[in-house]
Amino acid sequence: MAVYAIVLAGGAGTRFWPASRSSRPKQLLPLASGKETLLAATVRRIAPLVPPSNVVVSTGVHLMEATRAALSDAMGVTFLAEPVPRNTAPCIAWAAATLYARNPQAVCMVLPSDHFIAAEDAYIATVARALDAARNGHLTMIGIKPTRPETGFGYIEIGSPVDSTDEAFAVQRFVEKPTRERAEEYLASGRFLWNAGMFFFQARTMVEAVRAHLPEVARGIDAIVSGESTVEEVFPTMPGISIDHGVMEKAANVAVVPGDFGWSDLGTWESIWELLPKDGDGNVLPGESIAIDAHRNLVWDRGASPRTYAIVGVNDLVVVETGDAVLIVPRSRSQDVRLVVEQLRATGKRT
Amino acid sequence: MAVYAIVLAGGAGTRFWPASRSSRPKQLLPLASGKETLLAATVRRIAPLVPPSNVVVSTGVHLMEATRAALSDAMGVTFLAEPVPRNTAPCIAWAAATLYARNPQAVCMVLPSDHFIAAEDAYIATVARALDAARNGHLTMIGIKPTRPETGFGYIEIGSPVDSTDEAFAVQRFVEKPTRERAEEYLASGRFLWNAGMFFFQARTMVEAVRAHLPEVARGIDAIVSGESTVEEVFPTMPGISIDHGVMEKAANVAVVPGDFGWSDLGTWESIWELLPKDGDGNVLPGESIAIDAHRNLVWDRGASPRTYAIVGVNDLVVVETGDAVLIVPRSRSQDVRLVVEQLRATGKRT
Repeated sequence: MAVYAIVLAGGAGTRFWPASRSSRPKQLLPLASGKETLLAATVRRIAPLVPPSNVVVSTGVHLMEATRAALSDAMGVTFLAEPVPRNTAPCIAWAAATLYARNPQAVCMVLPSDHFIAAEDAYIATVARALDAARNGHLTMIGIKPTRPETGFGYIEIGSPVDSTDEAFAVQRFVEKPTRERAEEYLASGRFLWNAGMFFFQARTMVEAVRAHLPEVARGIDAIVSGESTVEEVFPTMPGISIDHGVMEKAANVAVVPGDFGWSDLGTWESIWELLPKDGDGNVLPGESIAIDAHRNLVWDRGASPRTYAIVGVNDLVVVETGDAVLIVPRSRSQDVRLVVEQLRATGKRT
Repeated sequence: MAVYAIVLAGGAGTRFWPASRSSRPKQLLPLASGKETLLAATVRRIAPLVPPSNVVVSTGVHLMEATRAALSDAMGVTFLAEPVPRNTAPCIAWAAATLYARNPQAVCMVLPSDHFIAAEDAYIATVARALDAARNGHLTMIGIKPTRPETGFGYIEIGSPVDSTDEAFAVQRFVEKPTRERAEEYLASGRFLWNAGMFFFQARTMVEAVRAHLPEVARGIDAIVSGESTVEEVFPTMPGISIDHGVMEKAANVAVVPGDFGWSDLGTWESIWELLPKDGDGNVLPGESIAIDAHRNLVWDRGASPRTYAIVGVNDLVVVETGDAVLIVPRSRSQDVRLVVEQLRATGKRT
């Protein structure tokens, strides 16, 4: 059964301003290292299992040009352009139906395009296990083994093994973002995994699940795939709903495969600092930098014209420079970058 | 007696890096406000007493082009180019001898080009008093009434009035940079003034004083002014000595006129922050800026391409951006900018 990847690249994150902009969201940035965008890394990373010609990238119409440019090295990728954002369920349903029409035997995976994975071999091995469960008819997720009592993620409680391999488990329940106290219980119990938004299924299984649980979405997608209506006509009429709420939490044949491969959702500049290699004082700095009595800072500048940075006597700061904008914020307040974007929007500025 | 101004513009300050560079020192920057360089402000400010055609600007050969450009609006200014720096005595002696040759009745003032003066009318009135004392044959200085126990300046202790006007005083003694304790005594006594490097004299008086106290310098300058030797031949052979040490501290006919006109030597970025108008949170920011929970910061960017600055949750920082370099330092450590310049020089980088 041929394997396909549906890469979700429609995100419009605001937490990496000014590096991320409405026209250049997080997945189109080389946030992890070097010059490879997170999107390109996602396609490159899965290549041992899915050739680019079996990759479908879903994004918004306004991001299509920049998204194609970011994947110019990946020959044969298919692009789906959403005319308006409708969360993940309509998008995944559309891609699954499209692949089902292309190949009724298709086995699919859904991958976010803006995450980081440190241990790529372990990742590929975990994906292979999840694909096995998908081939056995399960709507399968990868759940990340938690490393801290994170309150920003959804959790998945694992149930009994779904087969004799002891690699895939039934889902006992889905839990929304927990309190700190609850998150610490989950971490200690060993029975909870982070929902990382990775899904694995036969195209047929997903098409059937959408028909069963989201009939309104299924009718719209049918109309698009049959050519009866255009995506521009149908998509705006769709409900905005996540695949988690719309399908996974309702379906009976759901499984989860635990994964442990240095995953990070790269939520804020703080997580970028955590990820990147540091000098002896804990600083992440561009090449031409001078740090004097400065510790644990992140200076982010991937601009075309190199600058000399001199940081003297400052600690735990994030500095982001993009030529037309500069952000300075303590690492511990990285999440407040959204306040900047809100204020820019409120005053009618470009974001 | 015609009045001339000798403006000292050869300084190569390092404390305003990255705005100041070896090719664009402090006096060529618009540090006080708007787009007027400190040098242009110096010439403009004295214009009620000295027309530009009576202004002599002394600078280094390597700064000549940039210095002329900064004064392109001041028609008729004369420039003297020092082939090598030799502190202030040879430079002032050369300018005084040049003006004496031009007009044996010349009355001269020596003005630093990199200071700030808030109350320009009071400044002009003080300069007029100092010129009166100079016409009476005194080597005259303006001494600034101290406002704090500053340990970075030299002090002048005032003696008895030199005439019946009670506006100019003999100098009791010159004091080098004092200890903090001593500086507090000076401030409390009311008898000490800051040496601001402003001198007033008849050209003839200075030529004679140099001949008496710095005969080696006098011989060299005579050779230049007579055309016997070139400045390129003579200047490198001169001793590097200040007019304070070389002449003022030795001469008998020295006077000081107290001044109180909002003077600042603009020593560091901290003093620029003190000077400039602030928003309600004490920030000095470029026009397109967003400050969230940020207080008492200075963001300096006078570049051609405007940037949006977002500062979130940071206090008392100096941020300087020049397109090719960025400095970030706490205001209280502004003086450590020299460490950056030292490190750049030590690694063979341009400064």
